[in-house]
Amino acid sequence: MRDFLPEDVRRREYVIGVIQRVYERYGFEPLETPAVENLETLMGKYGEEGNQLIFKILKRGEHEASGQADLALRYDLTVPLARVVAQHQAKLPKLFKRYQIQPVWRADRPARGRFREFYQCDVDALGSTSPVVEAEICTAVSDALVELGFRDFTIRLNHRQLLTSILNVCGIPESLHATALVAVDKLDKIGPDGVKAEMAARGISGESAVKLLEVLERFGKNEPGSRSLLLDAAGIAAFENVGAIVALTDGTSAAGHFRLDPSLARGLSYYTGAIMEISVPDLAGSLGGGGRYDNLVGMFLGQSIPACGFSLGLERILVVMGERGMFPTSLATSPADVMMAVFDAADVPHALRVAGLLRRAGLRVLVYPDAHKIGKQIKYADSLRIPFVAILGGDEIAAGTVTIKDLAAQTQTTYDQAAAGDAVFEGLRQRG
Amino acid sequence: MRDFLPEDVRRREYVIGVIQRVYERYGFEPLETPAVENLETLMGKYGEEGNQLIFKILKRGEHEASGQADLALRYDLTVPLARVVAQHQAKLPKLFKRYQIQPVWRADRPARGRFREFYQCDVDALGSTSPVVEAEICTAVSDALVELGFRDFTIRLNHRQLLTSILNVCGIPESLHATALVAVDKLDKIGPDGVKAEMAARGISGESAVKLLEVLERFGKNEPGSRSLLLDAAGIAAFENVGAIVALTDGTSAAGHFRLDPSLARGLSYYTGAIMEISVPDLAGSLGGGGRYDNLVGMFLGQSIPACGFSLGLERILVVMGERGMFPTSLATSPADVMMAVFDAADVPHALRVAGLLRRAGLRVLVYPDAHKIGKQIKYADSLRIPFVAILGGDEIAAGTVTIKDLAAQTQTTYDQAAAGDAVFEGLRQRG
Repeated sequence: MRDFLPEDVRRREYVIGVIQRVYERYGFEPLETPAVENLETLMGKYGEEGNQLIFKILKRGEHEASGQADLALRYDLTVPLARVVAQHQAKLPKLFKRYQIQPVWRADRPARGRFREFYQCDVDALGSTSPVVEAEICTAVSDALVELGFRDFTIRLNHRQLLTSILNVCGIPESLHATALVAVDKLDKIGPDGVKAEMAARGISGESAVKLLEVLERFGKNEPGSRSLLLDAAGIAAFENVGAIVALTDGTSAAGHFRLDPSLARGLSYYTGAIMEISVPDLAGSLGGGGRYDNLVGMFLGQSIPACGFSLGLERILVVMGERGMFPTSLATSPADVMMAVFDAADVPHALRVAGLLRRAGLRVLVYPDAHKIGKQIKYADSLRIPFVAILGGDEIAAGTVTIKDLAAQTQTTYDQAAAGDAVFEGLRQRG
Repeated sequence: MRDFLPEDVRRREYVIGVIQRVYERYGFEPLETPAVENLETLMGKYGEEGNQLIFKILKRGEHEASGQADLALRYDLTVPLARVVAQHQAKLPKLFKRYQIQPVWRADRPARGRFREFYQCDVDALGSTSPVVEAEICTAVSDALVELGFRDFTIRLNHRQLLTSILNVCGIPESLHATALVAVDKLDKIGPDGVKAEMAARGISGESAVKLLEVLERFGKNEPGSRSLLLDAAGIAAFENVGAIVALTDGTSAAGHFRLDPSLARGLSYYTGAIMEISVPDLAGSLGGGGRYDNLVGMFLGQSIPACGFSLGLERILVVMGERGMFPTSLATSPADVMMAVFDAADVPHALRVAGLLRRAGLRVLVYPDAHKIGKQIKYADSLRIPFVAILGGDEIAAGTVTIKDLAAQTQTTYDQAAAGDAVFEGLRQRG
């Protein structure tokens, strides 16, 4: 887990701000949930591996000595959403669209762009089974990436029922579907031969494995006639659903970015329909992923509510943007626009008064707190890249003026105290 | 711990936005630290009661069965700051001013405005012993409160050394100072007689207790000559320091709000100098507090760095603002400006295209995902207080137009699709 120093925070807030604005434009409303959930709310929702990565909190009070845990740190934003929808159902609209940008915690081994504390930027819509939901979510996420400056992202798209149908076609018994998907999910990483070996190790016949890889390839190429391979109605409906989602995004920022990837499986166990993942060429793993999960709310409510969502990973976006130099140069890199120097301890009340004037004009003003030598104060401002220093000596105080020193240009000008704010703004504008 | 539904989040973000803008204006830079710290970083920093309120996290992996905890949830933002300054010293300026707005967790019993998860909005300046630091911090916090609409707040001000000196004057032995302060701190709650009883229970002589209450009263009234009661140089310096802080804020938003309160003790054990607390008449407890802590960084660094800070409590501010009706009416109360209705599933691509046009014009647009009866769709928009519904039937699609229905006025007008965005903006402006 990491500390974020000022420059890091400004970059994070910039990205969060863009994503938030785009999500709001699509009618998603903000939701926040506590960092801590009941342990039982989280257990069993993320698959076997997920269970092991949950941070558990010791029960408080007299039970502490027993080492028993009753609470846990949030592992994702989807399960808390399902709990909220079940718990506050009466207060929420039937079609509920929410976004949530908060940290989650996983006791995972860290890697590039993977941390134990990381932010997810989620959008979810609950209450409709229409593919319009998937289309709008993919478009919103695409808009956010485009607005951040990404052009080369791919939205890999698949459907859980299509996968099931393909596994059936290849003669893989249903009891082996889950383990087969774990192998299939690694196709990008370990290649067809790796997947074959892994399938063998998982008890899947060589014949089925070969056929599966061939069928996946034909679907992946979107070959005419691949649809006719499917033997069951659910698989055909899934295939058509995926096609409908792509068709609905025609003319949006997501158009042209889709790739049907029948090997995409997604680890989490709660997905029931379309699933998607967004990636860029220069990052292993994804910038985010999502899908439809029509049964998760039902696990809390006892009544199913259809739902679909997508989660953008903030840290991965930041890693790629940093490496590509995608941050706007206008992001603040100094703590202040002006540093108010202090000549003499006795003059501090005047310095604070003029600092107040500059702040009321909208400037960020740092008052140097000690009457150190003026050279030392200016050196400090320079080291922090503060562009202007305001100087208030006896002459200026007597005349109601203030001298503004431009550190880059090495010039200084004296202004009426009331006019200095506008002058500094003009100076900031000229530097861009 | 609570869920924040959309209206709650918008109010929280409004208050955080105001506080953040004001802090930036004073040259404070943003810092963020992880929710989780090493347990040993936190233990022993908050006094005996504090230790017991820390949420502990089970050690991961094979040790989990032992029930041993090695991590803990952040308890405040000050101790993590001290750790950061020690850890990243080389990367930080000698005078480091930071703000931090993040949640903290305490295993406390909930009360009005007191929760187990709550946000603190902290400003701290490290690297100077000048009272300018205290004055600027008090002014920044006052500016934030004034900008939120508070007029009637009191900044209670005291100094740890002044307290020590007063206890000495009253003949209370140093070994009883800590326990005496716990009693003194309750003066507001339990009155002079309560404090006398509590002092007796804590082994302080009746004579000392009576004298202490009398001295506190004389200082509290700022009686001429109260200074001469102090017997040691440290106490006199503390008294003058407090006076200097008040004098430096003359002409700022903090002026007129100070009250010297020699009974203010503040619970946390790390304070060494001036201490302050802000309160309003209609809330027991405080809206925030702070003070100088010149030795805390040294506990991590082995080298003292002078420091002073203040923490505003977000939840308490929200409680009072809610009860007083202080939130601006302009805060969004609906998820969208326009709802795009869907007449016919076949027309959805057109609806999404026009929704895109309206979004690019800057509007928040919610697309109804299902081709339900139009009356049902409009009812839904109305229930969410979405002011406008966009309708796109066969005629509109053929003509390149869109009909905008104003739900409050019960009127509808047909516009060219490209002009509809401006029309809705004009409608929003007219409603204010």
